[in-house]
Amino acid sequence: MTGQRLSDLTATETARRIAQGSITARSVVEACLEQVAQREPEVLAFEYLDADGARRAADRLDASGKAATLPIPGACFAVKDIIDTADMPTGYGSPIHAGHRPSADAACVALSRKAGGIALGKAVTTEFANVHPGKTRNPHDPDRTPGGSSSGSAAAVAARMLPLALGTQTTSSTIRPASFCGVVGFVPTYGTISVSGVRAAAGSLDRVGLFARSVDDIALYAAVVRGVTPGDAPSGQAFAPRIGFCGEFLAGRMDAGTGDALTGLTRRIATAGASVGTVAVPSSFTRLTEEHRWISSFEFVRNFTYEIENHWDRISTTLREGRISHGQSCPPEQYLEAQRLAKEARARADALFGDHDVLLAASAAGEAPKGSATGDFAFCALWTVLGLPAVSLPLMSGPSGLPIGAQLLGRPGDEARLLAAAAWIMTHGAG
Amino acid sequence: MTGQRLSDLTATETARRIAQGSITARSVVEACLEQVAQREPEVLAFEYLDADGARRAADRLDASGKAATLPIPGACFAVKDIIDTADMPTGYGSPIHAGHRPSADAACVALSRKAGGIALGKAVTTEFANVHPGKTRNPHDPDRTPGGSSSGSAAAVAARMLPLALGTQTTSSTIRPASFCGVVGFVPTYGTISVSGVRAAAGSLDRVGLFARSVDDIALYAAVVRGVTPGDAPSGQAFAPRIGFCGEFLAGRMDAGTGDALTGLTRRIATAGASVGTVAVPSSFTRLTEEHRWISSFEFVRNFTYEIENHWDRISTTLREGRISHGQSCPPEQYLEAQRLAKEARARADALFGDHDVLLAASAAGEAPKGSATGDFAFCALWTVLGLPAVSLPLMSGPSGLPIGAQLLGRPGDEARLLAAAAWIMTHGAG
Repeated sequence: MTGQRLSDLTATETARRIAQGSITARSVVEACLEQVAQREPEVLAFEYLDADGARRAADRLDASGKAATLPIPGACFAVKDIIDTADMPTGYGSPIHAGHRPSADAACVALSRKAGGIALGKAVTTEFANVHPGKTRNPHDPDRTPGGSSSGSAAAVAARMLPLALGTQTTSSTIRPASFCGVVGFVPTYGTISVSGVRAAAGSLDRVGLFARSVDDIALYAAVVRGVTPGDAPSGQAFAPRIGFCGEFLAGRMDAGTGDALTGLTRRIATAGASVGTVAVPSSFTRLTEEHRWISSFEFVRNFTYEIENHWDRISTTLREGRISHGQSCPPEQYLEAQRLAKEARARADALFGDHDVLLAASAAGEAPKGSATGDFAFCALWTVLGLPAVSLPLMSGPSGLPIGAQLLGRPGDEARLLAAAAWIMTHGAG
Repeated sequence: MTGQRLSDLTATETARRIAQGSITARSVVEACLEQVAQREPEVLAFEYLDADGARRAADRLDASGKAATLPIPGACFAVKDIIDTADMPTGYGSPIHAGHRPSADAACVALSRKAGGIALGKAVTTEFANVHPGKTRNPHDPDRTPGGSSSGSAAAVAARMLPLALGTQTTSSTIRPASFCGVVGFVPTYGTISVSGVRAAAGSLDRVGLFARSVDDIALYAAVVRGVTPGDAPSGQAFAPRIGFCGEFLAGRMDAGTGDALTGLTRRIATAGASVGTVAVPSSFTRLTEEHRWISSFEFVRNFTYEIENHWDRISTTLREGRISHGQSCPPEQYLEAQRLAKEARARADALFGDHDVLLAASAAGEAPKGSATGDFAFCALWTVLGLPAVSLPLMSGPSGLPIGAQLLGRPGDEARLLAAAAWIMTHGAG
């Protein structure tokens, strides 16, 4: 780092400069490590930091002569500790698995590395990606939660320790921490990023999520982990989107000011040329928030049978009395009925969009709450059941001046339009 | 074992006798281990045998006083070595992962144990559940393949070493070895048995599969690993099913005699009272065999990025020049189009059944071929893309007197009707 803070660069800009030959991957890694040294003592985003491994990977990349041909050369990334890594321990946020060494990288990690990305370390997850919090604090206010379950991933990107991070989402575990930490969070259409090597919470809902500080970075990184060729950056497109505003959805669960902040955002983007219509979410959809809970709890209990049967005393009381108790109380018929309703609703998801390109809703109830509890999960549960691609954009702020995200939803499979709309709104929606 | 061969018992009968108090779990384990000692030197079904662990588990169960309350007490089972076990190494059929120790049991393993099942060992899988064969031989003729990729699971059940085994299926890896080994093989509706802890081949197709020697055992074991309460045994139901016979589907790829054997079977069950109609599979479905190949290859390459990037020289030539080469040649657009066609076809799957309760087709081309190649995979690819529950019934034989399975397909989610029909056909369809 020579005056210029390379750790501030997006992955897109890092790749451009490396392709130009004006910076090296090693210099980027050193800048990110310096930022980690400054911020990590307060933020506590990392479960494990592999500084030497990152330096070696950067040197190999610089020596290869191939960096310029790769999509994300020199881009440092963090890996949520629910995701397997062969060269770093993977503890799934639980003392039961502390120090565990997987024998392979998860698909999303291996694809990131193949594309030139450099894994800096494992980011803190809540216990088994559920709600019992880890040590991470909100980079904007250490007295507040970063959100969960992808706590460390969101916080590390927000604290500018690195430009990219891998997370997961079974309810709201990417969109909510992105909102609380003021970064861009993204989940793809269900099933389109491989979850191989990701410890399952509820397989019919689990998705890999991505964190970055720009929509262009999300588009680039999503292409990498999907294993497809990166297309043009969405910010390059002229596109005034038609937006369906779900302003009444869960309005009763929002903090004071969040509704007004959303309305203010819609006014700004309407003024800039977007069409903004109102979408009322019918009760046949809103009830899915409850069905989501049955599905995720039933499947969670099934997937953690080994831990429940063999390590009950090392599971947190939060998890035992919350998710596990709920899952064990779920009759199989209730689960099967919830799955039936979910399947039926997915077939109707397209109609919810009407003429709109994307839907706009709250990412979370409001600002990150004080304390360690990771916040109200409800604002994503419906969209998660539907498997819709979603992005949280840091375009609003609350009464304490802390970030609040705007959640944009796309039709299944229509990430291109979603991200193009997101780029447009990021440009025209700033307050 | 005192004159009576407890290793011959089904899991259902074992549970009944243990509940009566007439046998112990330990005596069942000893009988199975004795059968392993006799047959394993020729069959080579096991990658790892944990005789002492099985004895300890049986003793714990016998001492617990709770065996009578469990669904499958004392039932020995084998675990395909693509499925994680915490107390036995899991090598995924590859030297890259030999000796790997997962930190948890896969969900299906933990659920089996919780239900009173006793894991005897890890069953041989082909390399990464693809086609490069393991050491296992067909129990009916050691010069022939047991089929793959769940080679050891099918062979161990066929050789009466144990009554139950866990496998997987991404193309035909449960139904084909069940057919070749002459046992009952079963895959549930896609998504209904958790794949948590199963190394993914192609996540949008992968299913856990089950092997047993009776349909009642399959129904019982399926309830256990789905985490639902076992219902009545299907053989208890009076049910003359309406059968849609897909006799022309892939007829050109069948061995001589397989078509006649299928026709003979339909005559026997029609005589016994089933209605048998003809179902012509339209080309909009038959083309999915090709789409299956694109989906499975593209996802395989994505999921094994770590191994391809880091251990290329320890991947078999078969796999490198087969699945991996095909996957690397697949343009992302081809993959996305295949997924689109698959999704569209799934929405039409119900119509394929018409008035029939189940469809009947070949499980494989014919008898197990000589040599180690694991056989033609095509006979399940379409049904796998559709995610239909399927069962292979050992009701036919070929020119060498070796078993050929009849494949029965159910509507998505309709396992109850499928297994009731299967039980009826097993009773009335024997040649």
